[in-house]
Amino acid sequence: MDIEVKTEQFKKVVSCASRATSNKAIQPILNNILLHSENGSLMVSATDLDLAIECKLPAEILKPGRITLPAKKLDEIVNKASGISVNISIDKNQLAKILSDKAKFQINGVSPDEFPEVISKQEEKPININQNELMRAISLTSFATSKFESTSILSGANFEINGNKFEIGATDGSRLARYTGNIGEDKEENDQRKSAVIPGRALAELEKLIDTFKDGNEFVSVYFLPGQVVFQNNDFSLSTRLVNGTFPEYDKLIPKEQSNKADFSRSELLAALERVAILANERTNVIKLTFEKGKKFAQLNSNSPDYGNATDEIEVEYTGNSVEIAFNYRYLTEVLRNLQTDRILLEMETSLSPILLKLSEKANYRYTYLIMPVQLR
Amino acid sequence: MDIEVKTEQFKKVVSCASRATSNKAIQPILNNILLHSENGSLMVSATDLDLAIECKLPAEILKPGRITLPAKKLDEIVNKASGISVNISIDKNQLAKILSDKAKFQINGVSPDEFPEVISKQEEKPININQNELMRAISLTSFATSKFESTSILSGANFEINGNKFEIGATDGSRLARYTGNIGEDKEENDQRKSAVIPGRALAELEKLIDTFKDGNEFVSVYFLPGQVVFQNNDFSLSTRLVNGTFPEYDKLIPKEQSNKADFSRSELLAALERVAILANERTNVIKLTFEKGKKFAQLNSNSPDYGNATDEIEVEYTGNSVEIAFNYRYLTEVLRNLQTDRILLEMETSLSPILLKLSEKANYRYTYLIMPVQLR
Repeated sequence: MDIEVKTEQFKKVVSCASRATSNKAIQPILNNILLHSENGSLMVSATDLDLAIECKLPAEILKPGRITLPAKKLDEIVNKASGISVNISIDKNQLAKILSDKAKFQINGVSPDEFPEVISKQEEKPININQNELMRAISLTSFATSKFESTSILSGANFEINGNKFEIGATDGSRLARYTGNIGEDKEENDQRKSAVIPGRALAELEKLIDTFKDGNEFVSVYFLPGQVVFQNNDFSLSTRLVNGTFPEYDKLIPKEQSNKADFSRSELLAALERVAILANERTNVIKLTFEKGKKFAQLNSNSPDYGNATDEIEVEYTGNSVEIAFNYRYLTEVLRNLQTDRILLEMETSLSPILLKLSEKANYRYTYLIMPVQLR
Repeated sequence: MDIEVKTEQFKKVVSCASRATSNKAIQPILNNILLHSENGSLMVSATDLDLAIECKLPAEILKPGRITLPAKKLDEIVNKASGISVNISIDKNQLAKILSDKAKFQINGVSPDEFPEVISKQEEKPININQNELMRAISLTSFATSKFESTSILSGANFEINGNKFEIGATDGSRLARYTGNIGEDKEENDQRKSAVIPGRALAELEKLIDTFKDGNEFVSVYFLPGQVVFQNNDFSLSTRLVNGTFPEYDKLIPKEQSNKADFSRSELLAALERVAILANERTNVIKLTFEKGKKFAQLNSNSPDYGNATDEIEVEYTGNSVEIAFNYRYLTEVLRNLQTDRILLEMETSLSPILLKLSEKANYRYTYLIMPVQLR
């Protein structure tokens, strides 16, 4: 192998692919990144067997070939390279020479024969989703997956295709996020129903990849395969194993509508929550929201057994009866940080029924977020 | 106590003073920050008994008083405060009410009676050093103090006043930094000789304090007291215990001049070092610099037993014989990052004698940095 690539492009793909490497000592080759040349492109890929990422960049192929190199060292070298291009050549002993400007690095490569196949060619017809829509769907749902048991079904998000709609749903048992968007293209053709449970980590990496390689792409193609899903555009492929099991039927948990409605400025509610959270009980993270019938201000309260208490008031458009409701403030701050709308709507019924968060504005997607309250004593 | 202060100013002093709090469980009050009002000012101070910081800000004193409050919570509250001012009032049960805009925090204070005296009033005439000069002296020396044994004499830096000069010297046994600057003011009067060994951490905090409160100050006043030194300007006082013991006579270790001289661009040398450092032995951090008589390029080499090796070349104005010299690259990158000059001069004699770093440019201060080389095998 003897190839030449642009430093800036190479830096970007090495850094992206590296995130799929594993540093489990059992298979040291999974610490490595696979480089292989193909029709004027260099493919850069890595996998930890759960997640695989492959990125493509234009390359001048002086001599085609394949090699795996330590991901961390390669990443450091490319980041410090001072030339506008990087030349990589491999000798027959798998020693890689990396040249950029006057610097020369020689690193010991490992034969690609031992490297697991990363992402197989897709033959099937994909489902294409607008990249901005998919990014928004992920950013508004993936944070609600369970972080504690990586084998639990709740560590993944339910990803569903239903005709011309797609849906992502995630819950950790205490809160739930559901996003429904349009697939958009090929309106007449798509009458498929497909679903898969995708690990939260894979979704988070997918979001970063789409964001990094936005330019020159419009859609992300999705392929449903046995036990895995592949997401792909012109620059990257991401393949992830699925979480085994049946996802709970979360739709049943979401009340249709609740009678008390509070319309807030998203940023003001977030700021007030963060203030009172300073004196929330550090073990439970509970804060209390109080609405009074006919009042234009909602009250927030916290109480820390160690330090003291805090109260704040915030403007609200409220219709309904007086109600007070307590919950883990983190469940609300997380979603408010990820939303990008100006206003949000909270719907409540009683102190013990779920709090529903919806968009107060018209949008071409549907979003519902649900928080289970905590019983007040 | 009932006082009102500007939020932005209060935020700055609380965050600075907090850095001197201790979270040792033995004396929980050292987690607290002391507020006390004095002649139209609020004094905010904290100590961990080794280091004490006191900051002053203008305040409207509605009712004078003293209280100690948990530093971390107070810092969080002030950082999230949305009003332009903060009102703090204390009731007779030491409960503090903190108001800003519509938010109200009540936190349990602790009586200031148990709080150690932070910084006593200075009667003696101080030595005044220009603040920018003192900051530069600290930034070029304090990183060379020993990080490993906090009781060792080398964990401190030697701070000396000698007539109209001051000097800071620091060494961890493998490298040494010495800065000599002018005191500047009161040229005719000062014929004092004083010295103290100041903990590296106190110097690092002092540098941050000077930088934060630069505006409205020109000098830092230094008071030498038994077992401690106090640094003070219009906005802060920092008091530090001294390190016990006699500082080694490091001047004797610095060769007067060495015959091989290499003049480099500081930023180019730093960049090249960081590149070859990627493949330095991760245990020893050694890299090798090679100079050849009459050549305009110096070579850098590294060799990692795990990964491979790197070489780079860098332009140099070299006078002397051929020499190669190996050393821990971190000792050179650290000083190059902190220096702000365009060019630097390395002086060497043999592969085994110290490497001296000097400024290649004329400056109104003197700086010498010495690195002990590593024997090449």
